[in-house]
Amino acid sequence: MPNVAICAPSAAFAKEDADRVLALAEAEFPGVKLHFHPQCFLSEGHFAGSDAARCDALVECANDAAFDAVWFARGGYGAARIAEDALARFDHAAQGKLYLGYSDGGTLLGGLYRQRIGQPVHAPMPADIRRAGGEAAVRRTLAWLGGDKSGEEPSRDHHPTVAFNLMTLAMLCGTPLMPGLAGHVVLVEEVCEYLYAVDRLFFHLTAHLGGIAGLRLGRISEVPENDRPFGAAPEEIVRHWCQRHAIPFLGGADIGHDIDNKIVPFGLAR
Amino acid sequence: MPNVAICAPSAAFAKEDADRVLALAEAEFPGVKLHFHPQCFLSEGHFAGSDAARCDALVECANDAAFDAVWFARGGYGAARIAEDALARFDHAAQGKLYLGYSDGGTLLGGLYRQRIGQPVHAPMPADIRRAGGEAAVRRTLAWLGGDKSGEEPSRDHHPTVAFNLMTLAMLCGTPLMPGLAGHVVLVEEVCEYLYAVDRLFFHLTAHLGGIAGLRLGRISEVPENDRPFGAAPEEIVRHWCQRHAIPFLGGADIGHDIDNKIVPFGLAR
Repeated sequence: MPNVAICAPSAAFAKEDADRVLALAEAEFPGVKLHFHPQCFLSEGHFAGSDAARCDALVECANDAAFDAVWFARGGYGAARIAEDALARFDHAAQGKLYLGYSDGGTLLGGLYRQRIGQPVHAPMPADIRRAGGEAAVRRTLAWLGGDKSGEEPSRDHHPTVAFNLMTLAMLCGTPLMPGLAGHVVLVEEVCEYLYAVDRLFFHLTAHLGGIAGLRLGRISEVPENDRPFGAAPEEIVRHWCQRHAIPFLGGADIGHDIDNKIVPFGLAR
Repeated sequence: MPNVAICAPSAAFAKEDADRVLALAEAEFPGVKLHFHPQCFLSEGHFAGSDAARCDALVECANDAAFDAVWFARGGYGAARIAEDALARFDHAAQGKLYLGYSDGGTLLGGLYRQRIGQPVHAPMPADIRRAGGEAAVRRTLAWLGGDKSGEEPSRDHHPTVAFNLMTLAMLCGTPLMPGLAGHVVLVEEVCEYLYAVDRLFFHLTAHLGGIAGLRLGRISEVPENDRPFGAAPEEIVRHWCQRHAIPFLGGADIGHDIDNKIVPFGLAR
């Protein structure tokens, strides 16, 4: 039964919310043991503690042979500042683990996948407990850790697959954390961005995704209202840029910044 | 005396504002002749007309031998959707021209500089007339077009120099519009972005700027208030990422989304 270390490479998590996640896990998933690293509750400016504190906690969780999985507590930006340094310190014990999260956590999932360390998994995080009905999202990851694969995103085929937040993946492009995605189906979702910014991100991203097997669009949610309508729906935007770069557009994906966000283990389906 | 074509590759411009710019030019710069292309006043969704209309107008202005300069009326996103197609249609008449603008207009300046077409110039645009005291900004570009170089950004040295909006340049990285900037001093400015987003953009951008002579920071203005302070000032952010990539940080730059925005002709100072 999996022993799961939880740390916060990006923004801080609240103790009360951690207690709710622990209570849910104990009540419904007695086989899944959660361990919140105290770093989760640090706060320094935008982040869950200094770069050094976040990096050290992540390395500690990854390199501790007692843990089978490392779960990122929350996104919110910050992993980009520590990912390279942390991955350089990962040792043998880090290799066989699961790494779970999404949103800004995708920065680490991308770097891990590039370096072929462990199994990166796009999955709901402890912070999802704060959403209305968020227990359903947290439960999905806990169930998956316990062996129930019913929460996996259903569109996967014989191609290796990855899932990212659009902004997070766009920012990884060309950096030492960007994985090679040739032959992959790439799933992306976005939240709280204007459609003109979504268009701009796809302009950028698709220029970096030559050779992928195809792109799938998750939910583009909580789009702020602009002073004028953009004039094209998210799917039209994606089709436009996919066509430009001869990338097959494969349809929707059941991922997003919401409680229905499904699980995508990176790579080939098993 | 320069004959200047004005088109709008991004967002639409208002006729009343064009009239104010025309009146200012006629009153104070009789030698500078401005010609607003009617496409400036089109509106379709987010943009100043369809992709085809914006592309056609830009090509028309660039390829008309009667004009010495092409001035972008306004930024606001949209040039990325037409830049490659437009540049592919530029002919011999487009080669010797000045191209002026900033913000989203940097998308075209970057592509022009990459393809060594004409002289790209970071400069205030007609749309700056809408700012309080914006006549000063518009006047700066008109004076420069008339031969008065006093509005040029003062930090330039013996290195070739370029100036961009941070987001615009970050989105160009790795695309067919990104110029090679080895040996260049790169000036960047930003507006209306959270500091965590600024940090994220520098994470991305600096990974693409290996080999530049140095980075200078223009104004980071109108930063929205977040639910928590970021914890570092813009200059600390830039220093952090420059250090990470061994890029010399050279100090400030007198550019920004404001009426004091100075002029930066791309390349070597003349």
